[in-house]
Amino acid sequence: MKSKNLTQKMISASRVNIGDRISIETKDLKKEGVLMPHHAFSDENIITIKLDNGYNIGIKVDESTKISLVEKGKKPVKTIKEIPFDKKKPTVSIVGTGGTIACYVEYRTGAVFPASTAEDLAFAVPEIFDIANIKANVAFQIFSEDMTVDHWRELAKIIADELNKGSGGVVVPHGTDTMGYTAAALSFMLKNLSGPVVLVGAQRSSDRPSSDAVQNLLSAVNVAACSDIGEVVVVMHGEISDSYNLIHRGTKVRKFHTSRRDAFKSVNIEPIGKVENGEIKIENKYRKKTKGKVVVDDKICSDVAMVYFYPDLKPEDIPERKGIVLVGTGLGHVSNNIIPRIKQLIREGSIIVMTSQCFFGRLNMNVYSKGRDLLKMGVISCEDMLPETAYVKLMWALGHSKKPDEIKKIMQTNIIGEISDRTKTNCYF
Amino acid sequence: MKSKNLTQKMISASRVNIGDRISIETKDLKKEGVLMPHHAFSDENIITIKLDNGYNIGIKVDESTKISLVEKGKKPVKTIKEIPFDKKKPTVSIVGTGGTIACYVEYRTGAVFPASTAEDLAFAVPEIFDIANIKANVAFQIFSEDMTVDHWRELAKIIADELNKGSGGVVVPHGTDTMGYTAAALSFMLKNLSGPVVLVGAQRSSDRPSSDAVQNLLSAVNVAACSDIGEVVVVMHGEISDSYNLIHRGTKVRKFHTSRRDAFKSVNIEPIGKVENGEIKIENKYRKKTKGKVVVDDKICSDVAMVYFYPDLKPEDIPERKGIVLVGTGLGHVSNNIIPRIKQLIREGSIIVMTSQCFFGRLNMNVYSKGRDLLKMGVISCEDMLPETAYVKLMWALGHSKKPDEIKKIMQTNIIGEISDRTKTNCYF
Repeated sequence: MKSKNLTQKMISASRVNIGDRISIETKDLKKEGVLMPHHAFSDENIITIKLDNGYNIGIKVDESTKISLVEKGKKPVKTIKEIPFDKKKPTVSIVGTGGTIACYVEYRTGAVFPASTAEDLAFAVPEIFDIANIKANVAFQIFSEDMTVDHWRELAKIIADELNKGSGGVVVPHGTDTMGYTAAALSFMLKNLSGPVVLVGAQRSSDRPSSDAVQNLLSAVNVAACSDIGEVVVVMHGEISDSYNLIHRGTKVRKFHTSRRDAFKSVNIEPIGKVENGEIKIENKYRKKTKGKVVVDDKICSDVAMVYFYPDLKPEDIPERKGIVLVGTGLGHVSNNIIPRIKQLIREGSIIVMTSQCFFGRLNMNVYSKGRDLLKMGVISCEDMLPETAYVKLMWALGHSKKPDEIKKIMQTNIIGEISDRTKTNCYF
Repeated sequence: MKSKNLTQKMISASRVNIGDRISIETKDLKKEGVLMPHHAFSDENIITIKLDNGYNIGIKVDESTKISLVEKGKKPVKTIKEIPFDKKKPTVSIVGTGGTIACYVEYRTGAVFPASTAEDLAFAVPEIFDIANIKANVAFQIFSEDMTVDHWRELAKIIADELNKGSGGVVVPHGTDTMGYTAAALSFMLKNLSGPVVLVGAQRSSDRPSSDAVQNLLSAVNVAACSDIGEVVVVMHGEISDSYNLIHRGTKVRKFHTSRRDAFKSVNIEPIGKVENGEIKIENKYRKKTKGKVVVDDKICSDVAMVYFYPDLKPEDIPERKGIVLVGTGLGHVSNNIIPRIKQLIREGSIIVMTSQCFFGRLNMNVYSKGRDLLKMGVISCEDMLPETAYVKLMWALGHSKKPDEIKKIMQTNIIGEISDRTKTNCYF
């Protein structure tokens, strides 16, 4: 058995239990609230309490912190309140996958496992019931770095099912680490969307006072319930402060910061819009939702590798695969020493596409002789597509054709906003 | 023999030669100047002329363009003017390596090969002689994507030699594609710098009116001649307009745009300073130049691979190498399915370090269990280091020790500004 950590020791020494109303006093502050359970994801020295205003805060404790019981809790916490169904409101399905945002929900509900019922969510972020009727599901509960092609497939099916059964939109709480990849994958796999599909995450879990989980989830439900978007989008903080959320196109968004709340940026296009003070402001072109049936097109060939180029990359480090996404330099270059390997792989049937490790801007493989040579030998330019999106799209293209010419055509045709007609150079830092 | 392209045909039909004063009239403009030679790198439909103000412009021509002779040129162009030596001015060595910026020089000098003498440079950017006495060398002439560890070594030796022979600073014109990698490599390899080492490039070649080559080269020579910086820095445009150049630390800079002139951004720190209207403004901490002898420390082990993580990365795509830089997600994560491969490689003696594909922000491998598990098995956190810098540093660390504990210590010790004490979260978009 594992030895108890500091918070566990302090809690048992103070003879308080999860659900009890307690008082915590540190050198800096004194707070009263309901003791929430500790989550495996969070810092060992954090104790989380739910304040009377409904929000949770995490308090860093040390040996000198004083904890005392104010009032024993009533059990079970889960059934305090009933969730009304309002037929005038749209219905939004929430399909959980895990990640930091899920931790939040767990604290609020008093459950260590993710919120799986509408009641759980009511205690987590009760404000969402002002916007919509909520149908809550959990697809899986994993760290997003463990998401695979099979998870994308499963998720696409659940989302299509929810929309086809009548939900007006779907919200997918997701770990931020690979949210961009999943958003791109769902963009290609979900056809004829009858409502918005909104991926949402949190950069800070709710055991930290600066958590972005509540605002992000509220804005995501808002977009899912009240917008006429028929695309897969990512809704995250637009700034470091809580001023607004941005609505990013799923094929054009990338995480650029390990910890800032505005880690997600649209690349080479402006975001579709924003959510500010509960109001959705559409600012750019988007695909509108349809009235038809959502179709899952998950013909995907996962035999694809992504190879990030660097000086002295060894030719043999480019693996043999049906598809290879090169993340080249600048306008779409790699070194001379790997050219023979590229030729060989193409001769043996690999489809090789080029993207840029600059991320911003468009490839132009016609400027320098290197680029022209690569084009001549059959390397396909991905224009202003993100490497992550090109990776997903190449899998999808290989699932739809075995013919190199057709695959090339698919890669170079804009399917769901992944290639811009003209790259806006103002969409930069 | 290759058939003539449009510009070649038009030039011979108009009976004009390189060096002649000509007039060009297109639908949009009419210009007079000296006809410059066509460079292999530039668009086939561009004719470059040197205007009377000393600058070159590239003019797009088509069948309707009119070209006529104004005055026959005098030959040879190269020896029109003599370069004075002014003993009151500092001496700057220019060590060419190739890239777009070299094309510029070529146009100005009328040479298809890079400027290799002070006279060549005088006709290219004569303003640099107002700042310093110039010693010009060409180390090699390659596209920067073809730079290798051996080129870094050669370059380091030439630079040290120039400084030790009395130059006050060195300017290295370099292709922009891998300029960040070279800047990081030189940062580790050059010890005890007695003057600034300034890498400089151009995003637009001089056959385009929007070329950034002149301003960048001028600012670079200015920093090399007049600052007391004892670091390797990158000097490039600070904005899309010509308002100022930024001085970036060599270990903290990355190219983030395929074509914008302000493609280079300092990551997780503020730039050291700027050059505005010919004035150097130092705004942040930097290492000052010394009076000693510059030493080349090029003990480098190039048996290192960089692996960019993505969903469904196959374990076997992580090669067996003495060193591996993982470019993981978020705070420093990878998927469960590659954990056994990482364990195996570490057991077999590989040193594995972690960086983030977010680029901005700091790793924190203590937040989630995945990160803690990776640390436990021996993966080394690179804190807020760029993946490209970590790649170079790991080669350098492996060249300096065979002992895992010592290598770890080197990787986690800030040597030349590659790790910040505290990551400034405002250094972002």
